[in-house]
Amino acid sequence: MWRLYQFPLCPFSRKVRLLMGEKQIAYDMVREDPWAASDAFWNLNPAGRTPVLVEEVRGITLADSRAICEYLEETCEKTPMINGPAVMRAEIRRLVALFDENFYADVTAPLLSERMKKRLVLRQPPDSRALREAMKMAHGHLDYMDWLIDNRPWLAGSTMSLADLAAAAQISVADYLGGIDWNGHEQTRGWYAVFKSRPSFRPLLTERMDVIKPPAHYALVDM
Amino acid sequence: MWRLYQFPLCPFSRKVRLLMGEKQIAYDMVREDPWAASDAFWNLNPAGRTPVLVEEVRGITLADSRAICEYLEETCEKTPMINGPAVMRAEIRRLVALFDENFYADVTAPLLSERMKKRLVLRQPPDSRALREAMKMAHGHLDYMDWLIDNRPWLAGSTMSLADLAAAAQISVADYLGGIDWNGHEQTRGWYAVFKSRPSFRPLLTERMDVIKPPAHYALVDM
Ligand SMILES: N[C@@H](CCC(=O)N[C@@H](CS)C(=O)NCC(=O)O)C(=O)O
Ligand SMILES: N[C@@H](CCC(=O)N[C@@H](CS)C(=O)NCC(=O)O)C(=O)O
Repeated sequence: MWRLYQFPLCPFSRKVRLLMGEKQIAYDMVREDPWAASDAFWNLNPAGRTPVLVEEVRGITLADSRAICEYLEETCEKTPMINGPAVMRAEIRRLVALFDENFYADVTAPLLSERMKKRLVLRQPPDSRALREAMKMAHGHLDYMDWLIDNRPWLAGSTMSLADLAAAAQISVADYLGGIDWNGHEQTRGWYAVFKSRPSFRPLLTERMDVIKPPAHYALVDM
Repeated sequence: MWRLYQFPLCPFSRKVRLLMGEKQIAYDMVREDPWAASDAFWNLNPAGRTPVLVEEVRGITLADSRAICEYLEETCEKTPMINGPAVMRAEIRRLVALFDENFYADVTAPLLSERMKKRLVLRQPPDSRALREAMKMAHGHLDYMDWLIDNRPWLAGSTMSLADLAAAAQISVADYLGGIDWNGHEQTRGWYAVFKSRPSFRPLLTERMDVIKPPAHYALVDM
């Protein structure tokens, strides 16, 4: 059985969980707080980052969410998520990188730092300028997603792909932390509502972090 | 013919160039300075980042170096670089991510910022504390590489892979900017010397940035 070392508000862990959910691969979870990673965890992943996926019986340790997703895609044929001809697969991977890197750096990471790390670790109030800037950047990214969805049924093309999972993972964390203002983003809001009702997404939406509460609309499927 | 939009000291552009060199895929180059990217370039890549690989006749535009490398690997069988069983491929991709993300963030990016951007764009002197910190982080990464090479002929296993190209790309930029102290890293130095003599690497090593000069040992194969 797979064991996922993850953190509830880590968007990369969420992307892997969404993919394993869609592929119906069973796993259990170990919570690992990245800011207090144990030596044992550093031994699993020299980058000291969540997620890490382990299969003890077969002696497999996988780190880096994109490497993990490629592995799951190569070894489990069910519900392919990096599919189609090479150009389409390149488009899926370009968008995964855009959400993993740019959306994360512009939006999710500053929100995690201001709304979670300062609260749980540093015991400081959030910096309201940094929060405003992250929310402004979120609008820019949602504008681009609106444009994609105007032109294609799913973010990368005609079928759901890892690009949709990567985007939903980032957005769900940003939305949990109150960083998404949905006004004016009807296309993306519609796309996200469909997503929220998928069985792969339900377990993520019902989880709560101890002290940090999401806004009321967070887990509602029709919002 | 492929056209690569790239920047000489961009390690991600270098990784793609090394892969195209190893696979003997022909391309020409357009220099794009990421800090002064044109509107036309933003249209090619909404992330505004180098590298971008274009094939005009077939209407193909690829962005993100990892998506580009996966595409080249899928479409060109010559000299496979993401090879072997799924666990090996996952190990290659884990290491690519480690160099692309951690080595870059810890070492290459601060060196580029202090030694290149401050000089060419901001016209400020470098911050010597930031430089010292980047060089200290470089030692940590080279220690890990020494350990890998003690245990395996190449970074990811028994054959050369994209992990080696990703590492060489980052190290070559850091070395150009004077950020690598080779003392005490005999294993990695030996691995890198082999690399420097490869035909795919020679064109990179002979290029010079206008005002910024590399240290004397930079292009020497026996150093
Ligand atoms: N490229 C990695 C990024 C993972 C990542 O940044 N995880 C965060 C938590 S959301 C982390 O562990 N940060 C701690 C650190 O970077 O030291 C992946 O896709 O798995
Ligand atoms: N994940 C991207 C990263 C590319 C990247 O960061 N390129 C740098 C130059 S080395 C850049 O264009 N930076 C400008 C920016 O991020 O705005 C890739 O692998 O292609």
